[in-house]
Amino acid sequence: MLSKSLLRYRYITKVPRVMFSSFRIESDTFGDLEVPADKYWGAQTQRSLMNFKIGGPRERMPLGVVRAFGILKKCAAKANLEYGLDSKVGEAIIQAADEVKNGQHDEEFPLVVWQTGSGTQSNMNSNEVIANIAIEILGGELGSKMVHPNDHVNMSQSSNDTFPTVMHIAAAMEVSQNLIPKVQKLKDALHEKSKEFAEIIKIGRTHTQDATPLTLGQEFSGYVAALNNNLVRIEESLHGIFEIAQGGTAVGTGINTYEGFSERVAEFLEDETGLPFVSGKNKFELLATKDALVYLHGALNTLATSLFKIANDIRFLGSGPRCGLGELALPENEPGSSIMPGKVNPTQCEAMTMVCAQVFGNQVACTVGGSMGHFELNAFKPLIIKNVLHSATLLGDACESFNKNCVAGIQANKDHIHKLLNESLMLVTALNPHIGYDKAAKIAKTAHKENTTLKEAALKLGFLSEEQYKAWVRPEKMIGPTDYDE
Amino acid sequence: MLSKSLLRYRYITKVPRVMFSSFRIESDTFGDLEVPADKYWGAQTQRSLMNFKIGGPRERMPLGVVRAFGILKKCAAKANLEYGLDSKVGEAIIQAADEVKNGQHDEEFPLVVWQTGSGTQSNMNSNEVIANIAIEILGGELGSKMVHPNDHVNMSQSSNDTFPTVMHIAAAMEVSQNLIPKVQKLKDALHEKSKEFAEIIKIGRTHTQDATPLTLGQEFSGYVAALNNNLVRIEESLHGIFEIAQGGTAVGTGINTYEGFSERVAEFLEDETGLPFVSGKNKFELLATKDALVYLHGALNTLATSLFKIANDIRFLGSGPRCGLGELALPENEPGSSIMPGKVNPTQCEAMTMVCAQVFGNQVACTVGGSMGHFELNAFKPLIIKNVLHSATLLGDACESFNKNCVAGIQANKDHIHKLLNESLMLVTALNPHIGYDKAAKIAKTAHKENTTLKEAALKLGFLSEEQYKAWVRPEKMIGPTDYDE
Amino acid sequence: MLSKSLLRYRYITKVPRVMFSSFRIESDTFGDLEVPADKYWGAQTQRSLMNFKIGGPRERMPLGVVRAFGILKKCAAKANLEYGLDSKVGEAIIQAADEVKNGQHDEEFPLVVWQTGSGTQSNMNSNEVIANIAIEILGGELGSKMVHPNDHVNMSQSSNDTFPTVMHIAAAMEVSQNLIPKVQKLKDALHEKSKEFAEIIKIGRTHTQDATPLTLGQEFSGYVAALNNNLVRIEESLHGIFEIAQGGTAVGTGINTYEGFSERVAEFLEDETGLPFVSGKNKFELLATKDALVYLHGALNTLATSLFKIANDIRFLGSGPRCGLGELALPENEPGSSIMPGKVNPTQCEAMTMVCAQVFGNQVACTVGGSMGHFELNAFKPLIIKNVLHSATLLGDACESFNKNCVAGIQANKDHIHKLLNESLMLVTALNPHIGYDKAAKIAKTAHKENTTLKEAALKLGFLSEEQYKAWVRPEKMIGPTDYDE
Amino acid sequence: MLSKSLLRYRYITKVPRVMFSSFRIESDTFGDLEVPADKYWGAQTQRSLMNFKIGGPRERMPLGVVRAFGILKKCAAKANLEYGLDSKVGEAIIQAADEVKNGQHDEEFPLVVWQTGSGTQSNMNSNEVIANIAIEILGGELGSKMVHPNDHVNMSQSSNDTFPTVMHIAAAMEVSQNLIPKVQKLKDALHEKSKEFAEIIKIGRTHTQDATPLTLGQEFSGYVAALNNNLVRIEESLHGIFEIAQGGTAVGTGINTYEGFSERVAEFLEDETGLPFVSGKNKFELLATKDALVYLHGALNTLATSLFKIANDIRFLGSGPRCGLGELALPENEPGSSIMPGKVNPTQCEAMTMVCAQVFGNQVACTVGGSMGHFELNAFKPLIIKNVLHSATLLGDACESFNKNCVAGIQANKDHIHKLLNESLMLVTALNPHIGYDKAAKIAKTAHKENTTLKEAALKLGFLSEEQYKAWVRPEKMIGPTDYDE
Repeated sequence: MLSKSLLRYRYITKVPRVMFSSFRIESDTFGDLEVPADKYWGAQTQRSLMNFKIGGPRERMPLGVVRAFGILKKCAAKANLEYGLDSKVGEAIIQAADEVKNGQHDEEFPLVVWQTGSGTQSNMNSNEVIANIAIEILGGELGSKMVHPNDHVNMSQSSNDTFPTVMHIAAAMEVSQNLIPKVQKLKDALHEKSKEFAEIIKIGRTHTQDATPLTLGQEFSGYVAALNNNLVRIEESLHGIFEIAQGGTAVGTGINTYEGFSERVAEFLEDETGLPFVSGKNKFELLATKDALVYLHGALNTLATSLFKIANDIRFLGSGPRCGLGELALPENEPGSSIMPGKVNPTQCEAMTMVCAQVFGNQVACTVGGSMGHFELNAFKPLIIKNVLHSATLLGDACESFNKNCVAGIQANKDHIHKLLNESLMLVTALNPHIGYDKAAKIAKTAHKENTTLKEAALKLGFLSEEQYKAWVRPEKMIGPTDYDE
Repeated sequence: MLSKSLLRYRYITKVPRVMFSSFRIESDTFGDLEVPADKYWGAQTQRSLMNFKIGGPRERMPLGVVRAFGILKKCAAKANLEYGLDSKVGEAIIQAADEVKNGQHDEEFPLVVWQTGSGTQSNMNSNEVIANIAIEILGGELGSKMVHPNDHVNMSQSSNDTFPTVMHIAAAMEVSQNLIPKVQKLKDALHEKSKEFAEIIKIGRTHTQDATPLTLGQEFSGYVAALNNNLVRIEESLHGIFEIAQGGTAVGTGINTYEGFSERVAEFLEDETGLPFVSGKNKFELLATKDALVYLHGALNTLATSLFKIANDIRFLGSGPRCGLGELALPENEPGSSIMPGKVNPTQCEAMTMVCAQVFGNQVACTVGGSMGHFELNAFKPLIIKNVLHSATLLGDACESFNKNCVAGIQANKDHIHKLLNESLMLVTALNPHIGYDKAAKIAKTAHKENTTLKEAALKLGFLSEEQYKAWVRPEKMIGPTDYDE
Repeated sequence: MLSKSLLRYRYITKVPRVMFSSFRIESDTFGDLEVPADKYWGAQTQRSLMNFKIGGPRERMPLGVVRAFGILKKCAAKANLEYGLDSKVGEAIIQAADEVKNGQHDEEFPLVVWQTGSGTQSNMNSNEVIANIAIEILGGELGSKMVHPNDHVNMSQSSNDTFPTVMHIAAAMEVSQNLIPKVQKLKDALHEKSKEFAEIIKIGRTHTQDATPLTLGQEFSGYVAALNNNLVRIEESLHGIFEIAQGGTAVGTGINTYEGFSERVAEFLEDETGLPFVSGKNKFELLATKDALVYLHGALNTLATSLFKIANDIRFLGSGPRCGLGELALPENEPGSSIMPGKVNPTQCEAMTMVCAQVFGNQVACTVGGSMGHFELNAFKPLIIKNVLHSATLLGDACESFNKNCVAGIQANKDHIHKLLNESLMLVTALNPHIGYDKAAKIAKTAHKENTTLKEAALKLGFLSEEQYKAWVRPEKMIGPTDYDE
Repeated sequence: MLSKSLLRYRYITKVPRVMFSSFRIESDTFGDLEVPADKYWGAQTQRSLMNFKIGGPRERMPLGVVRAFGILKKCAAKANLEYGLDSKVGEAIIQAADEVKNGQHDEEFPLVVWQTGSGTQSNMNSNEVIANIAIEILGGELGSKMVHPNDHVNMSQSSNDTFPTVMHIAAAMEVSQNLIPKVQKLKDALHEKSKEFAEIIKIGRTHTQDATPLTLGQEFSGYVAALNNNLVRIEESLHGIFEIAQGGTAVGTGINTYEGFSERVAEFLEDETGLPFVSGKNKFELLATKDALVYLHGALNTLATSLFKIANDIRFLGSGPRCGLGELALPENEPGSSIMPGKVNPTQCEAMTMVCAQVFGNQVACTVGGSMGHFELNAFKPLIIKNVLHSATLLGDACESFNKNCVAGIQANKDHIHKLLNESLMLVTALNPHIGYDKAAKIAKTAHKENTTLKEAALKLGFLSEEQYKAWVRPEKMIGPTDYDE
């Protein structure tokens, strides 16, 4: 650990540098290059900036990847200290990488996703930035390579194993720390509603048409079950993500690394993240396919099908106020229209279903990218991790927004639910055992034709008395299976 | 069990009926309808035939679904015998359903996938066919409803829980009995090749460009690992498929069925199939979402990304015979061209990658269908099961074909592999520790510029002797990590 | 033209052959092979049958492709007669190909889609079948190669230019002869409904919520406009399909063919099909990409988005009978339920939306296949044409079924539409100019809160008289823009 | 036009406001709300910021949409001046909207894509920002509604017609001003290469295997033709984009707008953008479907299949330097590896193919969104325009990058191309007419088996003399069709 005074010195010295000159010279094997003087990145980052002007700042490598590089480089340095890395250099790298991990240098990562398909340029970006921060910590001159991006920060590593590892770290963290908790909270909120609505009997709908009744609580219990199952699926699909490619280096063989390095990095990663990373069993697969991430996205895609259905149901059940189904009252969060009071647009449902549609698209991007590994390397990696993180973040955030701004405030329009239930013709089903299917059918058809209630039709036809009707047509008996007594 | 003579009588009586009249009258709640006299189906099947002329015979409900209906109706009848079904009727249904299960009546299922989204018409098709076969077994008149399609065959059931159950049965059987064994055999074949090629050191390729070496066996081990992981994923994704919707009836509540019916059906299904079916925990979810199948398809989709990559690699590694990479000799199964001898087209790779592209498309169809459940029912079910079975069958068959007609016969072109390895400039890496990076780089650049081998350049530049070159540049030392000895 | 007697002789002689032996020997450059004696196909077809057991009979090359081979081989023979083909041989080929075109030999094309990606095996299948039929016509012995599959039937051609040409023929015919007319008829039917419903003012719905009114005719006019625009798009996208690859032969250069051959074939194709085929401008592009078909599928995909929306609207507008929106009465085509009379399931909407979801998936399959051309050849061709034809056929058939069995019979529930309109709170908008936004809002909020009509609330609040209300709140004034008079 | 002094005053007064207070009060129909004092946006924007925390700043509405709002609001104000808008207010709105158009207020549009599906919140964001800027221009107090967001800026408009119009403006501008020119330049560069390589005869490859020869120029001509055709398709698909929804207002009827307003806006839009906008024929379709954009994306998707194929070809043709196909030398833009000199990674090909895979995914997002219009409104609009612009921008930028950093610098490795051509066995085809197929085949098989050249085998077998070989085996005769002389 660096002394506090050293750290203070560092931040003091940094400011003036910018003032004296707007550029400094950095170099790589292609030669010298000017880079902005107030940036830590080096020549390779600068070259990528010049060569890949695709999409602008919003297309930069996701911050989850940047932070994961901080984590990995910190852990790799810890391991390298056991494999001969100079301790002063190693400690400075650890300190610098920790800052990257903590988001203190997000602006130092200007490269877009649309670069080399191995993520080499982002790996070098992180090597260069960490090297220069470490140099600064040690009091050296930026660009001096006193801490070398390749020899020290990238020691025992290759872009071809670090980038896959970083993809897994970033995906595992986003899914476990953002997505899963937010899905759980949405599930809990729906579960609360399911309990709250347990006694409200409503008309069921199949094929969007009137069907036999169920409780509103039962309806919501289906949403809860769906989210619950999806949480299990997502957790299952993380298993493969915890296997890291680190140690495979250039082609999976582990050339230029040491026996045991991969395992030590995995242990440090577990310390750092609390997630059970392990050294991958077959590094050739881990460099050349992205199956674990494609599968994870398949789980996100499945979650999205559920969320689409839930949000779509809620928007229709809440449609109205007068001319829709009108069973639910959704919270009014913003003016739906400057013209019509009482209009509530299901905007949270709309945001959610749009997010889901994006996830469906991202699934294809991941799949195509995942299928295109050639020989020892899949070179669609930045695409894949961008899409996985995009989906996980959007789904997590949308669940939270949907939960807070919609589900938590849903009210049942009990009167309208009750009215619809009673108007429904399908309750006639309950009469079958008493008066037979034919007479029951006649009642229903009469009610339908004459636009009356079932009871009115039944009484008019004289098939049963009002008392009998009340005794027999009881929706509360129609919401579960029957006991069989022989 | 029916006596043999009764069965014989049945088949004898069937033939003449066709000869007297080409149609008979069947009825449903909409009235009477003519159906072909030589067919067992009834009025509802006939109506669907008339109302859904979409796509023709190739678009019929997959046979896997037809057979699964046989299985389910048999098991439901067994359960119904415990819940009051007349034993003579029940036994006849069991016999009839068993015949459907065994594929004896595939031609009785003429309905296309593009029908009602609940699969109701196919459920009624199976009810009608089984009822009439059972009637015939019992010596009754077809269409007499002596065994009733709804009251007896569909007893305690609804299309809304039988079709989802049938989807799960069909998917589970296709995946476990066709897909998994065929993927395993392909994996085994690749594993054999991996062992066979264990000693062949070859040039690695990243970004499609020359890289450091690995063994051909290592390269194939990545394929084995990928398939192995995908088998685990597919098995994981079957868990949800073993949960059945049976017992939910119309809307998930279980109206018109009995407590315990669902569990008994699941037990009989396990007896019948050997697969661990259980009654689903939440029937509302099982009727209204198709998440378990969307997730299963996500696993198939992931398998397809791997298979695409493997087949693509093999086609390029086998490219030539003179102007390609030429490392592998693929078996010659058919004339590649009437003009050029020696041309082998990688036709099995082409079939495989086309299948994978189809699976990528099917994933979208499943996903869109899965997201579109409305209220108590997903009404995209025939679409979803069609696509799941399509993908599972094609992938299974393609694995078998690829295995038998390609992988099993792959030979390594050892001489060419060796030649490429030796011509490669990247072996220069091994000189770094001995003569330093700068001199090594100079050797490589000279060789590249002058189009010579590394050894020629090294000797010309005088940086080392031929003996040293031979001692230091040893690809066999470049295919694994180094022991670290402190 | 062959004499009638010769033709008669041919069919007479064919039958006995089958009876004497069940196999005959055919050969290709790989050697001899037994083929079924009653089949016209030869050795290469037989080899493909053995080597590509993927998916079974339903996965056979679409019949549209088979028939298009008949057309192309006929036209190629006509052109070859001008380029030196023996006239007796040429006439026999023309006769044989014509039979294939007419669907007389569909069963002779047993190969599945999942074969070589160039479609070579299906090209050889057609060459072999046509050669043997021609031999039979000429009185020769099957397999004798008296008419040679390659030298005569495939003269001046290669699989690499015939299969792309056949793809374009098949797609152009299916789209122009099946899809377009059926979409047009659906459009016409919707247009009829739009006129029929021109005077029915109804509540509009945005965000699925109540909004300002429109006529039901206006609502349907949007459907008409959408289909109309899609017809224009589909016709636009056919332009590229009319360009044929014929004449490019093996790699696009036209080796082994003659100057002018391509143009003559295109002219004969136009004669044969009535469609304006022309020789493609750049044969390299036509062999190596499938862009024209991917773009055509993009138009089909757009049509599918429209049809999905239309069918979805109709299912929701027809939901009920009591607890849904209930504005439309859809024709009752089949029992929706054995329990509940009056229930109409929107089964045609369900079939249509499932078809659309399949098309969305097929789009991905086409796209992935289309992007995977390598060097001089795209080898995902059977996949692509299968998916294009699948989508075109399903969409066409679904439009016809949806039209006949749903749209044509749609009735407006005028009373319910009127009731909803009058209950709606949004008509308050019309009061803004008369009493101001604030008072109007107060009326609406009061009505919403107290669950009364607007008029009741207005009168209760005393803001206007009943006469004024009737004069000012007139939905028929709210369904178009206002004239601006300065 | 405002006087310069007024404008100066405006910017002077703006700064102090921020210094006095960090918040001000804005209001909407839901009440008062604090907004940052240095921002022009109002209450509805602020509410959306609070209610839709999904995805963060990178998920903001694309700037193309923001600028298009500036354009539209300017044009609407011009039209409104003809329909009674106060001229002082109108002029201030025009000035304010012009600033938004010019990108001076991008930071005032903080809302994310994942909001209400109608884009209402972004429409209100633009109304609020323009209103407050206009107020400032007129010397009023921010939030005073002296220029009212709804009554003035949104006059005669609804979110439901402005957002679709803005989508079309943004898409048309991005495609016509960014994408098309960049694709054209790439096409031109490939055309230059095609001419440069016109004389270089090389081996063709079909099925990735050696085939008959063509020139490298011919190969590149296929790429040129593909891009050319795609440009035509994209231009075709813009026709529908030029139709605007403006004038449809809330549900397509044009309530609250004037006859002729839509046409005037279209005319002003044409003035402003140079693009031929017209009032859409059917506004119901334009509000409720997004077909025109789905179709446009289908054209982008097709372009992406071509670009994928081209970039993939170039990466493989440039593979090596020693162990690949090695026909092309790609420009070396950055260090491929710190270990191996001479290694050039095809990084531009990788960026391009990743972009294409993203476009394939975006196609699904657009398609699903496009299919989900309900009744009078499609509520997936922000999703759709985000994906269309994303694809158009990425494709345009990737074409430019690929052009400048790859295609422009491609060199043919003539020696290697020539060597491969001569080693190829397929040239034997040329001997067929002279010595017959059988002897030619024997030569080829001998060469293949003994690993010699064709010539060596031919001479060894004694079938022809060296002079004859040279005279007959001439690749330059194999790259086009033959003249047919009768």
